[in-house]
Amino acid sequence: MPSEFWIEDPSRLLRVGAGFDLRAVDPDAKPGTAARKAEGAAELARAAQELRGLQEKLFAQSRLGAPDRLLVVLQAMDAAGKGGIVNHVFSQVEPYGLALSAFKAPTEEERAHDFLWRVEPRVPTPGMIGVFDRSHYEDVLIQRVRGFAPPEEIERRYGAIVDFERRLAEDGVRVVKIMLHISPEEQAERLLSRLDDPEKHWKYNPGDVDERELWAEYMEAFSIAIERTAAEHAPWYVVPANAKWYARAAVQRIVISELQRIDPQWPEADFDVAVERSRIERTSDLSWP
Amino acid sequence: MPSEFWIEDPSRLLRVGAGFDLRAVDPDAKPGTAARKAEGAAELARAAQELRGLQEKLFAQSRLGAPDRLLVVLQAMDAAGKGGIVNHVFSQVEPYGLALSAFKAPTEEERAHDFLWRVEPRVPTPGMIGVFDRSHYEDVLIQRVRGFAPPEEIERRYGAIVDFERRLAEDGVRVVKIMLHISPEEQAERLLSRLDDPEKHWKYNPGDVDERELWAEYMEAFSIAIERTAAEHAPWYVVPANAKWYARAAVQRIVISELQRIDPQWPEADFDVAVERSRIERTSDLSWP
Repeated sequence: MPSEFWIEDPSRLLRVGAGFDLRAVDPDAKPGTAARKAEGAAELARAAQELRGLQEKLFAQSRLGAPDRLLVVLQAMDAAGKGGIVNHVFSQVEPYGLALSAFKAPTEEERAHDFLWRVEPRVPTPGMIGVFDRSHYEDVLIQRVRGFAPPEEIERRYGAIVDFERRLAEDGVRVVKIMLHISPEEQAERLLSRLDDPEKHWKYNPGDVDERELWAEYMEAFSIAIERTAAEHAPWYVVPANAKWYARAAVQRIVISELQRIDPQWPEADFDVAVERSRIERTSDLSWP
Repeated sequence: MPSEFWIEDPSRLLRVGAGFDLRAVDPDAKPGTAARKAEGAAELARAAQELRGLQEKLFAQSRLGAPDRLLVVLQAMDAAGKGGIVNHVFSQVEPYGLALSAFKAPTEEERAHDFLWRVEPRVPTPGMIGVFDRSHYEDVLIQRVRGFAPPEEIERRYGAIVDFERRLAEDGVRVVKIMLHISPEEQAERLLSRLDDPEKHWKYNPGDVDERELWAEYMEAFSIAIERTAAEHAPWYVVPANAKWYARAAVQRIVISELQRIDPQWPEADFDVAVERSRIERTSDLSWP
């Protein structure tokens, strides 16, 4: 690892593999590091250059035709910190290279189509890092818990997601799915702190408590979705997220590892450098005004 | 002004008003400050919180129905620093609140429609800061210089732009247009430095030199476009940009001023805080696993 913060690579430790059991993941754990909060913020700042360097190369090589791109799917219970991940990790990426999509409850038009219809146009184009704040996984999470779709349709969707993500992989899209995992106690604290601060009231949605009451059902739906859709070509990571600083540093490191795996390269010039130099030098006496 | 960096408010000094003459703007000038490069970087970092605070309020108030949003149009000759403005100023905005659109040469489909057809869907929605890297102004800049459209069509477009931007203003969109103004000598240096660095070759486009050769024609086209479309409801700013640090700090300050003008407010809660608190407290014993 390139830092003292990480003793072991969290992208290996947090990756869902055979025998996965969500019950065994402690939301308070901090796999891979022995560091504390202040060091988390320092690591986040330190690794920003690493992240941005890789992202810039990914973007650059796409200008000359490389198909690679990264799609990071963020899923979590409310107040688990998706917004903080976007604002503290993905804000480190150049705006030109970031495509953020927040998925809300589907509109009437969206509901009239297959559940992947609204997702397809949000898939990042070559060179981009796409981030989904919620995603097609809502269609097997809230839709399952709330019974918005019949069981056989939910069942069909797991397979449809696997096929969809395999097609993306074949097209150069590295799909990486991340669950931020908090405890119900931590969620209660965060929701209460939103109520305590009038400047945070706009982030509070009474509907979040309705979903909270179904915590066990949601965890079951997450478990099944993760098990059914974790794949070599589209891995799941479950990130303990009771400590925001840990979750942010871990997601940053996962994204860096996934970009290193793509291994983007500065593209070769498709013009003659000497010719271009002399063309510019010939126009050195433009006078204006 | 809230800092020692700015002696006078650049948003006042750089704003295009009556009697505007582009020839009188020195690309090396640094109106409003006596500071130097290192202080520019410090100011940029210092004011980030100010910018982000206003932007977050703008976003927050839209969640409860406020229509306000900001659209910043960036126009300039190649290598004038639009990319740096996005990467150093607008990267300070939360990704959720930023909508960046880079306009390239129009596609065949786009050319089959009116020139504003492709712009309309990129106008930011309430709460957002939209940034156009190039824009509908290309349709009266390169299109005029290159004669891609006949003179009477170019003539029509100035009026169409004024009407379009007035309609946006009536709809809650504050439209702010910024020209980054460099000298041809500075452009030559920047293009040559891209050629000197293989990691920057992907940013180099031989076509840029073709446009460079028409510098005087471009400056005339900019002058006319600015004069014809500068309005109280959609102002132009011409920012001297030979010094990147000055241009970045000045654009940051212009954006902050424009957001202060909108004066966004934290929205009132549309729920009963006490009721919500007790709902959360009632669910404090959710046990999982």
